Amino acid sequence: MRDYPNLDILLGNYMAARIGKVFIVGAGPGDPDLLTLKALRMIEQAETIVYDRLVAPEILALASPEARLIYAGKHGGDQETMQEWIFEHLVEFARSGQRVVRLKGGDPCVFGRGAEEYRRLREAGIEAELIPGVSSAIAVPEQAGIPVTFRGVARGFAVVTGHCRAGDAIDWNDYARVDTLVILMGVAERAAIAQALIEAGRDAREPVAFIERGATPEERIVCASLSEVAREEVEVASPAVFVVGQVVALRSEIEASAALAAA
Amino acid sequence: MRDYPNLDILLGNYMAARIGKVFIVGAGPGDPDLLTLKALRMIEQAETIVYDRLVAPEILALASPEARLIYAGKHGGDQETMQEWIFEHLVEFARSGQRVVRLKGGDPCVFGRGAEEYRRLREAGIEAELIPGVSSAIAVPEQAGIPVTFRGVARGFAVVTGHCRAGDAIDWNDYARVDTLVILMGVAERAAIAQALIEAGRDAREPVAFIERGATPEERIVCASLSEVAREEVEVASPAVFVVGQVVALRSEIEASAALAAA
Repeated sequence: MRDYPNLDILLGNYMAARIGKVFIVGAGPGDPDLLTLKALRMIEQAETIVYDRLVAPEILALASPEARLIYAGKHGGDQETMQEWIFEHLVEFARSGQRVVRLKGGDPCVFGRGAEEYRRLREAGIEAELIPGVSSAIAVPEQAGIPVTFRGVARGFAVVTGHCRAGDAIDWNDYARVDTLVILMGVAERAAIAQALIEAGRDAREPVAFIERGATPEERIVCASLSEVAREEVEVASPAVFVVGQVVALRSEIEASAALAAA
Repeated sequence: MRDYPNLDILLGNYMAARIGKVFIVGAGPGDPDLLTLKALRMIEQAETIVYDRLVAPEILALASPEARLIYAGKHGGDQETMQEWIFEHLVEFARSGQRVVRLKGGDPCVFGRGAEEYRRLREAGIEAELIPGVSSAIAVPEQAGIPVTFRGVARGFAVVTGHCRAGDAIDWNDYARVDTLVILMGVAERAAIAQALIEAGRDAREPVAFIERGATPEERIVCASLSEVAREEVEVASPAVFVVGQVVALRSEIEASAALAAA
């Protein structure tokens, strides 16, 4: 091999240019109009997009026709095997120099393990960036007429997951006393959650809403009382945002006053 | 006046066409890149924009040069007088047939009284729409390296206001036991809030972060323990997002592992 003093530098520059980056992007509640400007640009420029179940097809349609779209939902085995599969592929795509978008519903730090993927990528020496999105926990109730806060009614709110890994269950006593409680991934366990909240001191008559397929044309809202949910009297299909609190009653009041004004 | 049978109909159509609409829009945490596509379109098309203190100048610069921009922050008197002034003007602009944007920082239903304005407008017979935005309560910590949830560390989070109207103070016992606690508008009362959380059973050694001027180039992050905040040892300037919980410790771990990987 010829003596070529700049080879190391050239090779270094080339390798640096070939190292990709992973953008962990929140896609919002589903409506493409609620994507951020940054998320849209990232989706349009991505060479590879690894997306979750809750990302709407209308959003994936915004990707470049040359982009490779990879569904991260079903790869056999349990959730940890799948998570490992996702992580290894994100690393591989980034190391091959690609501009990778890891696309998640809502905001990447509200469940969805966005921060966990970010941290592992950084530990592996991969450049990564978290890009916030509109959280479904706030926006889905809002578009259904239920504000998570309202002066004189709710001075705060909490968001929890109804679906925890084994041995890491929520102590509902910790969340039962907040003003508005928003539960994501809580449809399957709704009766047990409602019962636990009542036992922790929440009023059994309190209004509850489930917003199925929120922010989509198929949205359906089911209203009930906490005790009706505890008694398994309420039919709901997953995915749905489960809201507990007096703010749920504002919905009918807002609708009623609007109807009155229109009459 | 000549007999003109269609005059009533014509006049009715004309009046209907002249009735405006108020879009109550979340502007996100400050970075124009975190506006939603819908928010950008609403701002560009607005004839009048009534905006709050926390809306960045870069975002207002996106309005049409013909748009009238009205600052809703300072009009003398107390908060209720100001709120009344805002409401009356929104009604007046909409009745004069304008396309009005009521622009708020973050999401309009996370404090900021967006839902209250929506409800009053609907009661007054004015067409109104709430448009969700990226909430600063989630996005500001996220961009500072603090995820509000993290598997095995925080299964949920709560968001509360540190600034309540007289007689409507937060009972910190209701919020002390959630995993991650995000307090907005809590800088002035930070020592009293930290003390109340410790008295309600929260660990005094728990890490706390204040993110001043989050999502702007002037961002500054102050980390401390809950007891240091309670002892008034921590200097912070408003506005800042106040975060309490073990997720705050992830920030330095993420940064340290990234530095290690880069070394």
